[in-house]
Amino acid sequence: MDNISTWGVWLRHALEVAATMAFTLSGVMVAARSRLDAVGVYAVAFLAAFGGGTLRDLLLDQRPFFWVRHVEYLWGVLALSTAAMLFMRQRHFEPTERAIQVPDALGLGLFAAVGVDVAMAVGMPPLVAVLMGVVTGVFGGVLRDIVCNEIPTAFRDHRPYALCAFAGGWVYLGLDVLAAPEWLALTSTVTIIAGLRLLALWRDWRLPLWQVER
Amino acid sequence: MDNISTWGVWLRHALEVAATMAFTLSGVMVAARSRLDAVGVYAVAFLAAFGGGTLRDLLLDQRPFFWVRHVEYLWGVLALSTAAMLFMRQRHFEPTERAIQVPDALGLGLFAAVGVDVAMAVGMPPLVAVLMGVVTGVFGGVLRDIVCNEIPTAFRDHRPYALCAFAGGWVYLGLDVLAAPEWLALTSTVTIIAGLRLLALWRDWRLPLWQVER
Amino acid sequence: MDNISTWGVWLRHALEVAATMAFTLSGVMVAARSRLDAVGVYAVAFLAAFGGGTLRDLLLDQRPFFWVRHVEYLWGVLALSTAAMLFMRQRHFEPTERAIQVPDALGLGLFAAVGVDVAMAVGMPPLVAVLMGVVTGVFGGVLRDIVCNEIPTAFRDHRPYALCAFAGGWVYLGLDVLAAPEWLALTSTVTIIAGLRLLALWRDWRLPLWQVER
Repeated sequence: MDNISTWGVWLRHALEVAATMAFTLSGVMVAARSRLDAVGVYAVAFLAAFGGGTLRDLLLDQRPFFWVRHVEYLWGVLALSTAAMLFMRQRHFEPTERAIQVPDALGLGLFAAVGVDVAMAVGMPPLVAVLMGVVTGVFGGVLRDIVCNEIPTAFRDHRPYALCAFAGGWVYLGLDVLAAPEWLALTSTVTIIAGLRLLALWRDWRLPLWQVER
Repeated sequence: MDNISTWGVWLRHALEVAATMAFTLSGVMVAARSRLDAVGVYAVAFLAAFGGGTLRDLLLDQRPFFWVRHVEYLWGVLALSTAAMLFMRQRHFEPTERAIQVPDALGLGLFAAVGVDVAMAVGMPPLVAVLMGVVTGVFGGVLRDIVCNEIPTAFRDHRPYALCAFAGGWVYLGLDVLAAPEWLALTSTVTIIAGLRLLALWRDWRLPLWQVER
Repeated sequence: MDNISTWGVWLRHALEVAATMAFTLSGVMVAARSRLDAVGVYAVAFLAAFGGGTLRDLLLDQRPFFWVRHVEYLWGVLALSTAAMLFMRQRHFEPTERAIQVPDALGLGLFAAVGVDVAMAVGMPPLVAVLMGVVTGVFGGVLRDIVCNEIPTAFRDHRPYALCAFAGGWVYLGLDVLAAPEWLALTSTVTIIAGLRLLALWRDWRLPLWQVER
């Protein structure tokens, strides 16, 4: 038991690092594409990495924020963004959307599960808890795109992303109601959300589209 | 007296439902025009319906939010957005700006009055209370437009909208200072704001314009 | 000593007024350039003047906001925006970016120093405190630009702005750790940040640029 929970802590930590790195790199890529300067790249990287969880904590009135409790993540995002910019300058390395698909999907799963967990801990009703999971997973990217003056990708590219988090959120909620151990709920939810997301990308699933005249 | 207050509760409830429906449909319309996918339509509909009140409550540090206390409104917005998308797909129905002008004007009046009321209840100074009323009525639409990558309509179409809420807010404040009963303050304010707004649309009133070279 | 602290209070007040006026005018100018109507000009002026400090207080969970404690500043921004619009209409006066460079640089310095101060007072770690200083100084302009549907100037014009606030924030932090008197920490920080900013504009310093293909 002790073994499993140590393993659970380690797993969660590894997922957190992978997710934060993937979200940071997504911020660096979008910012570079929008021709921001170095300050803009840092700002967008921070927003992408911490925006979702921060918005959730603002809405749920939870303090301190993740990045206040774990300042090392702030330093990490600063360092990773700097490294990415240097590498991009020298053309040794170009982070691509494709390269971060797997850590991004894992991050979506982890952030969504954590979001549902935090919301339930403060007594939110089920639908609100699941939506808080979606906000945690998705709004980092939404804020990133808004600052870069683009319509958020999550809202317009017709590939299931927020929807995977929404579906997985209900799974987490159900496992919690059934009093499943936390490590099981966490790993199942991350597996389901990341699995759905990667399956959707692989099989090229599309959300329904409709035509509208202006 | 009891009769009037029951009637007041019923009226407020009816206004709330009408306003939320109008703001939801405005979100669906703007999102569809911006070619968002289904997830984007839901997100923008939520922002349009609940964004103003949520921002007010964040600024005033009030919890729980309206949509946490009344989760049925979240389900309602989900259902209405789904229905609107299905109908729009089959061309049976096209929500138009014109069709929601009356409930939107009523919603502006109601949300502004409620915003002033909440702000005064936590002891805000008069100008801040009136501005909180404006925020409640207007910022749902502002956030909706920002996410859709447009300059907020409320800030650029030269037709009085926020201004009606601002004027009506002072009326509500005055009636409250005079200790008018709440139902009277509420109905008067909604009548004045919605009346001003519809009059402005009907008579095509314009805010002053000026030319600026770049 | 008493003399110096009275003088310090007076100086801080004068800086606050100059900073708020500069930020308000920057809001009016960007809003006018984006062809907003009068309501939009007011909204953007408010965001530019109070957005940074308000976001900082939201993140640090501090209430009441500056503009609730000092409603006279709200009236001042209303009056200044109105005056600027009237003058712009009659062509007697055109606020230019150049004309507000000095008060804007002073404002950046003051807001950054105040931001670091507030964050340290509630026990934030050093990096978070410095970032809160940057947020206070920079995010009024960021919100202003987002509402006007532009990529924030602070993130894309390659001229050091946020960076000056970041550097100066560490100076303020250092002086505070060394228990320097507050008026000394404040004046030094404002001098350094404003000096760096004006030097950067004068010598046309640029943040490094890199090329990215889409």
